[in-house]
Amino acid sequence: MNMQFYMPTRIISGSGCVRANSAALAALGKRALIVTGAHSARANGSLADVTAALDAEDVEWSLYDKVMSNPTIPCVYEGAAIARAEQADFVIAIGGGSPMDAGKAIALLAAQDVPEEKLFTGPFEHKILPMALIPTTAGTGSEVTQYSILTNDAAKTKTSIASPLLFPNLAFLDARYTASLSPATTVNTAVDALCHCVESRLSVQADLMSAMIAEEGIRLIASRFGALKAGTFTPEDREILLCGSTLGGIAIAQTGTTVVHCMGYGLTYFRHIDHGRANGLLLAAFLDFLWKKSPALVAPVLAPMGFSTLEPLKEILSSLLGTRETFTEAELAGYAADAIKLKKISSSVVVPTQAELLDMYRASLL
Amino acid sequence: MNMQFYMPTRIISGSGCVRANSAALAALGKRALIVTGAHSARANGSLADVTAALDAEDVEWSLYDKVMSNPTIPCVYEGAAIARAEQADFVIAIGGGSPMDAGKAIALLAAQDVPEEKLFTGPFEHKILPMALIPTTAGTGSEVTQYSILTNDAAKTKTSIASPLLFPNLAFLDARYTASLSPATTVNTAVDALCHCVESRLSVQADLMSAMIAEEGIRLIASRFGALKAGTFTPEDREILLCGSTLGGIAIAQTGTTVVHCMGYGLTYFRHIDHGRANGLLLAAFLDFLWKKSPALVAPVLAPMGFSTLEPLKEILSSLLGTRETFTEAELAGYAADAIKLKKISSSVVVPTQAELLDMYRASLL
Repeated sequence: MNMQFYMPTRIISGSGCVRANSAALAALGKRALIVTGAHSARANGSLADVTAALDAEDVEWSLYDKVMSNPTIPCVYEGAAIARAEQADFVIAIGGGSPMDAGKAIALLAAQDVPEEKLFTGPFEHKILPMALIPTTAGTGSEVTQYSILTNDAAKTKTSIASPLLFPNLAFLDARYTASLSPATTVNTAVDALCHCVESRLSVQADLMSAMIAEEGIRLIASRFGALKAGTFTPEDREILLCGSTLGGIAIAQTGTTVVHCMGYGLTYFRHIDHGRANGLLLAAFLDFLWKKSPALVAPVLAPMGFSTLEPLKEILSSLLGTRETFTEAELAGYAADAIKLKKISSSVVVPTQAELLDMYRASLL
Repeated sequence: MNMQFYMPTRIISGSGCVRANSAALAALGKRALIVTGAHSARANGSLADVTAALDAEDVEWSLYDKVMSNPTIPCVYEGAAIARAEQADFVIAIGGGSPMDAGKAIALLAAQDVPEEKLFTGPFEHKILPMALIPTTAGTGSEVTQYSILTNDAAKTKTSIASPLLFPNLAFLDARYTASLSPATTVNTAVDALCHCVESRLSVQADLMSAMIAEEGIRLIASRFGALKAGTFTPEDREILLCGSTLGGIAIAQTGTTVVHCMGYGLTYFRHIDHGRANGLLLAAFLDFLWKKSPALVAPVLAPMGFSTLEPLKEILSSLLGTRETFTEAELAGYAADAIKLKKISSSVVVPTQAELLDMYRASLL
């Protein structure tokens, strides 16, 4: 038995934690660039809390609020140019996965010159602006990972920058910022977090620590399947889903994701299906693929849900995801051909062939 | 539900992990001070692995091997003076809790001037030499904590320096270094680790992450109660005990220890009873104290052992610890009077009075 672990981000959570910990923010620098999208951080109160915390500490700040869903490479270079122009010495990223992932790439690109063709590969110098991340959805876990996932038009998929440099210094978890999310977004992001936990637990990279954390994440998220089906959430439901999402992030920081994410990227890139929903559409087929190899492979992720077969999970996912988008056989064959090229697939406890990937796409989407 | 977490140490484990990760060591600096005790690091192969790894990377090193059990304040100032004289720019501490805790203090004192009267209180500048820690016992968890516990003659107890600066950069877990430990040392250190997990789980500071980690640590250590009673250990037993110990360290890094450690320090300071054994002698009485308040308080630490009452644990501890040292009522009254002054006691789920502390000492030692 061995354990490997690295997750240097300080996690601070609780209602009001941003304002209550303004000194921790101020310790990161003298001039912040706040990175976010156009709307939600204003609507959910997170931006106001951040600016109040900075103002209370006399820390200057400027705002880059142009991060779109599935952020692009031009977006992060633009943000980095603004960070340099504003002489920002730290970054605060607020939002779902898109602003958080963009914020991490901006912090990197503001501190060093990386040509576009080296962005996904490195090597990088050991330089990055300090970062605080504030999730406003409960899905991505980006606040505790070393990944920044960007739209990669050259490869027609989403690709990760993966570097220990990208671990944020601080993650603030305040579930109030997720309170106004629509039921659909809540479901999609929760399903994404569930996939992080499941894929991590079923990775060959899983070990004592990552498995324990992933299983606890599954337990937390599954404990809210009822709320997710009903589409109504108490503050406690929101807190539990946010903790589950962060646990999923810590787990994939150790192991990476595997098959489901690799398959999901195509649905998002070509058909603009929400990232979490894309993963959710494919999750049952992946588990079924493993189940047919051996039910014992799937037991570690079913047990924390309280299930001993796949059927109850399939029913819940069907109920949560509703009517599925339609695809042609040719589309799916193309996605399978792209997905098999992705290195992360090889970390699955059973590595599917391209034909098996296509079977999973068909079972999910035809 | 909320979670706080901070443990920035990179944990690398496995047989041969030091030599296999020589580059990670070399990334810490150009000239190492190796801090250890006089004998065990030579005997168990850890010192040879470290020097081989450094030599392979052309990293210069010097050795300070004068750390005694329960290291003193003069010891860490001496080590720091040697670090400065040798122009060491990082520290590698090898050993049980004593060399590791001394190494952390030496790394601090080598990087900044701290007068003795400020050593336990700070404030400190944000400066410390980078550190790699290599445990050669499975007990202290110091390789993943922000604590350096030194003998404090002024307070006639052991006192922690506690600062986030003291988290090591790297922890190497190679259970081979624990293979030659005597059964008695193995028991004492395992009992210490068990106390870390139990006290952390029963701290008011416990939360989702720390509780999960502490419970897993209890589960691992309890799974080896048989080997501990038999006094014979397979390599797998050694790995599991080492992982359990590190989990205990991660847990107390979040919560601190509470009553048992506060009570144990007196036995070590005044009667030179091994630290782990001292805690073990007191553990059952602490849990009995809580049980009498409410059995539900103790359930979270008994369940991972597979127990529903205290009796089986009491039997195991009695069997492991053997004949107890004898004390006078006056000695115990003195220890209770000292222990009640320690702040950490107030983190216990039920805070005992001085009279209740004395009752626990009596139940354990008269």
